[in-house]
Amino acid sequence: MRIALGVEYDGRGFSGWQTQPKGNTVQDALERAVAAIVGAPVRCHAAGRTDAGVHATGQVAHLDCDVPRPPGAWVRGVNSHLPPGVAVCWAQPVPEHFHSRFSAYARCYRYVLLNRPVRPAIAAGQVGWFHAPLEVEAMREASAHLLGQHDFSSFRAAECQAKTPVKTLTRLDIERVGDTLTFSLEADAFLHHMVRNLVGALLMVGKGGKPAEWMAELLAARSRASAPPTFMPDGLYLTGVRYPEEFGLPSPPPLYGPRRQADV
Amino acid sequence: MRIALGVEYDGRGFSGWQTQPKGNTVQDALERAVAAIVGAPVRCHAAGRTDAGVHATGQVAHLDCDVPRPPGAWVRGVNSHLPPGVAVCWAQPVPEHFHSRFSAYARCYRYVLLNRPVRPAIAAGQVGWFHAPLEVEAMREASAHLLGQHDFSSFRAAECQAKTPVKTLTRLDIERVGDTLTFSLEADAFLHHMVRNLVGALLMVGKGGKPAEWMAELLAARSRASAPPTFMPDGLYLTGVRYPEEFGLPSPPPLYGPRRQADV
Repeated sequence: MRIALGVEYDGRGFSGWQTQPKGNTVQDALERAVAAIVGAPVRCHAAGRTDAGVHATGQVAHLDCDVPRPPGAWVRGVNSHLPPGVAVCWAQPVPEHFHSRFSAYARCYRYVLLNRPVRPAIAAGQVGWFHAPLEVEAMREASAHLLGQHDFSSFRAAECQAKTPVKTLTRLDIERVGDTLTFSLEADAFLHHMVRNLVGALLMVGKGGKPAEWMAELLAARSRASAPPTFMPDGLYLTGVRYPEEFGLPSPPPLYGPRRQADV
Repeated sequence: MRIALGVEYDGRGFSGWQTQPKGNTVQDALERAVAAIVGAPVRCHAAGRTDAGVHATGQVAHLDCDVPRPPGAWVRGVNSHLPPGVAVCWAQPVPEHFHSRFSAYARCYRYVLLNRPVRPAIAAGQVGWFHAPLEVEAMREASAHLLGQHDFSSFRAAECQAKTPVKTLTRLDIERVGDTLTFSLEADAFLHHMVRNLVGALLMVGKGGKPAEWMAELLAARSRASAPPTFMPDGLYLTGVRYPEEFGLPSPPPLYGPRRQADV
């Protein structure tokens, strides 16, 4: 029997998603908790192998298990064996041909950035930080060049294992509320470090160092060396994964937390 | 020379504001950082002595210092000596008769509550959590009984040192965005544990255990024993302190962090 799980985690305490010998990854924590419920080792596969320090509100994983367990076991049971920084939000049986990674047709990420002179304290490690003023309108103009199908080699980490650097970016919205900027992205798939590299380049435009058209030049260069360094992981959230309707999985949950508001 | 400081902190790493022999409080961290800049011990006084696990975006402190330092020293300099969970957001000279605690005429707190079956993971320790569904409209009706001047003895901790239990609550707004409830409160002053005790009582109404009028009965009882237990500190933020205009202090900053939004 195959089970899909919706997983939320705070990336600060983990060395990313993917299992490592030291055992300090989200996959390691989840597999240990599932094993405690099932009574045997169980492999968990995820839609997105997020890096160290990257968070998720809408990660989707799946596992195979022949031991029958009541539906509540996969949420309340597994959660009782998980550390505070990870939680299973939902669990659902899926057909054998479902795969959390290969059945997904789109991924949604959000980058939350604190834009003020003073570093974050209450959300340290949970938001990116840029101290200088940023022009949102200039970044929106720049992001228009990125939408659609492109060769994103300029925004691809050297260690990226994707078969092709050609991806289709269908959304890149930038919103400001007070000192907080939110970048919402959606694509069929993302290259390794692609969101952090895109955000890093957009900040160059936002601070007035480059014109919006520079983004088109970066894309055309198809070379990582042309683009700015990878921006910090702190503000990055995997917010959702989209699957064909036939699987009937829950909609990805929205981000939550202490909301920034205009009044006191 | 007297300097006022705006201070933000994540209460998770600290045993509250007030100095303790073990040295693990926000006051201890701030005084160590200020001492590093000034070159001598300096006492820091705060508007609100927040409990262990309680956060602040708008705490105000003051200190006296005869050693002249450039304005940047009180923000960038002190911040470079503070741990990641605390930051000074602004600093400003104030007259000798200013006192962060005694000059304040109002305090603003916010309680952020995650209301869903699954415990928080990405904001563990930064939001309160209530698993059962809550009726916001019923809680709003109940909170109307609390507004104005009352004897708040039923919501006062035994160890409270306030001279009088009579306080004037001028605001208690409850807002829901997705699974997140935000309680915004303002009063001339709050008793020890008063916000957490009020939220605990409102949740009893919200889950349908008590009618809105019960809140008036609790107030009239003037007895801590009548009211529900103190609710967890995790979601509580000191968001601002109000002073007479003559001091010209900056407006309290809003909350920030990963915002909950309706879409992915």
